[in-house]
Amino acid sequence: MNGEIRPIKALVFDVFGTLVDWRGSLIRECQHFGRERGLDDVNWTGLVDAWRGRYQPSLEEVRAGRRSWTVLDDLHHESLLALLPGFGLEGRLSAAEIDWLVRGWHRLDPWPDTVPGLRRLHTPFLLAPLSNGNVALMANLARHARLPWDCVLGAELARHYKPDPEVYLTAIELLRLTPGEVMLVAAHNYDLRHARSHGMSTAFVRRPTEYGPEQAADLEAEEDWDYVVESLEELADALTGSARSA
Amino acid sequence: MNGEIRPIKALVFDVFGTLVDWRGSLIRECQHFGRERGLDDVNWTGLVDAWRGRYQPSLEEVRAGRRSWTVLDDLHHESLLALLPGFGLEGRLSAAEIDWLVRGWHRLDPWPDTVPGLRRLHTPFLLAPLSNGNVALMANLARHARLPWDCVLGAELARHYKPDPEVYLTAIELLRLTPGEVMLVAAHNYDLRHARSHGMSTAFVRRPTEYGPEQAADLEAEEDWDYVVESLEELADALTGSARSA
Repeated sequence: MNGEIRPIKALVFDVFGTLVDWRGSLIRECQHFGRERGLDDVNWTGLVDAWRGRYQPSLEEVRAGRRSWTVLDDLHHESLLALLPGFGLEGRLSAAEIDWLVRGWHRLDPWPDTVPGLRRLHTPFLLAPLSNGNVALMANLARHARLPWDCVLGAELARHYKPDPEVYLTAIELLRLTPGEVMLVAAHNYDLRHARSHGMSTAFVRRPTEYGPEQAADLEAEEDWDYVVESLEELADALTGSARSA
Repeated sequence: MNGEIRPIKALVFDVFGTLVDWRGSLIRECQHFGRERGLDDVNWTGLVDAWRGRYQPSLEEVRAGRRSWTVLDDLHHESLLALLPGFGLEGRLSAAEIDWLVRGWHRLDPWPDTVPGLRRLHTPFLLAPLSNGNVALMANLARHARLPWDCVLGAELARHYKPDPEVYLTAIELLRLTPGEVMLVAAHNYDLRHARSHGMSTAFVRRPTEYGPEQAADLEAEEDWDYVVESLEELADALTGSARSA
């Protein structure tokens, strides 16, 4: 939100939570799935929250070197399998149905401001995701949600998960830009902290309902990020000099 | 052109020559550049042909392991520098001007059928380049030529140049598809031959003027590729079942 002019050439984006509403989308998908199959007794909201609850621990196994590189699609699959008994779903889903639920992460819906904001940002800046999601997941999600990427960057290209330095450094290297010319846009302070530690520019987008009504973290910017905004439309206003309130 | 139905899910494209007219674009750019600077005495067409003439030899240094991984932008830069004396340009161009000419490879124009064809193919298929051009080059070229990629695949992600197997195999792995579900679209028989050797589907697009009026190679399909077409529009007709002549 400061007025400093930096020669930003590319915007790279955290995706889950920052651009797409993974929780709302998955809850809708799972509840619809359950209704179609007479599985109304299942606590689908609880399942989605528990599924995401296994996200960081599953990445940490890879980050800590306790298991070799494994893409997020496969971690999502394993995490879901492990949760089925606790939600009364053991033996009630076919392999194809489980695959379909895991592919739900490829069909997440964007926040209302995401696509209009990205479209405005696309003319002046090169745009790419910088997500822990694998390349196929990101490409399919872009097709579903109509995210106008110029290329897909992220964890799989570095074979490391954020916030390992390799993810940020590989993206900068592939773009052939200086770190300050690349801005990470994210709804998570820890991600921006790591990006800044590598010299990248930073923009915080507040997404106070990513984790539902009880969200406790990332409700506010915790550092003086280069930009702090409520939406991608506001980021486009700020970066393209066409602020509506100016 | 055979009628076999294969479950193709993604189309990956050779880019230089197949989708963009590198020779015509660079000759136009260089001649314009020369006129603006009073360098009309230079044989720009000869320079462009000599520049591309150094392409395969420069890749071969990397493929053969005689030099470590080097991206195409840097090889283009080195090749141009080496050619300047022979074309009467030694000491007549600034570093910024040389950089601008090298960046000409990021500003190549598509063949007339490329963008209309890709747009039609984008709805049913995931689309990505599979080029020896590096990621930034491909992303910038897509921005210039409006190529609707879902992600960027290619040599840099494998740190090998086509036709090394790693380039094809890395793309298939990143897409999380079987080889037959991925079709290489290319104007070069050697590229398709290698793709087929890894089980990929194949489409040959005839580009008989890629190398100018004297082109000697790749004038015709040399094997029974799955599809043989004169344009991406014709490929869209064939793959989407809306053939105009049917």
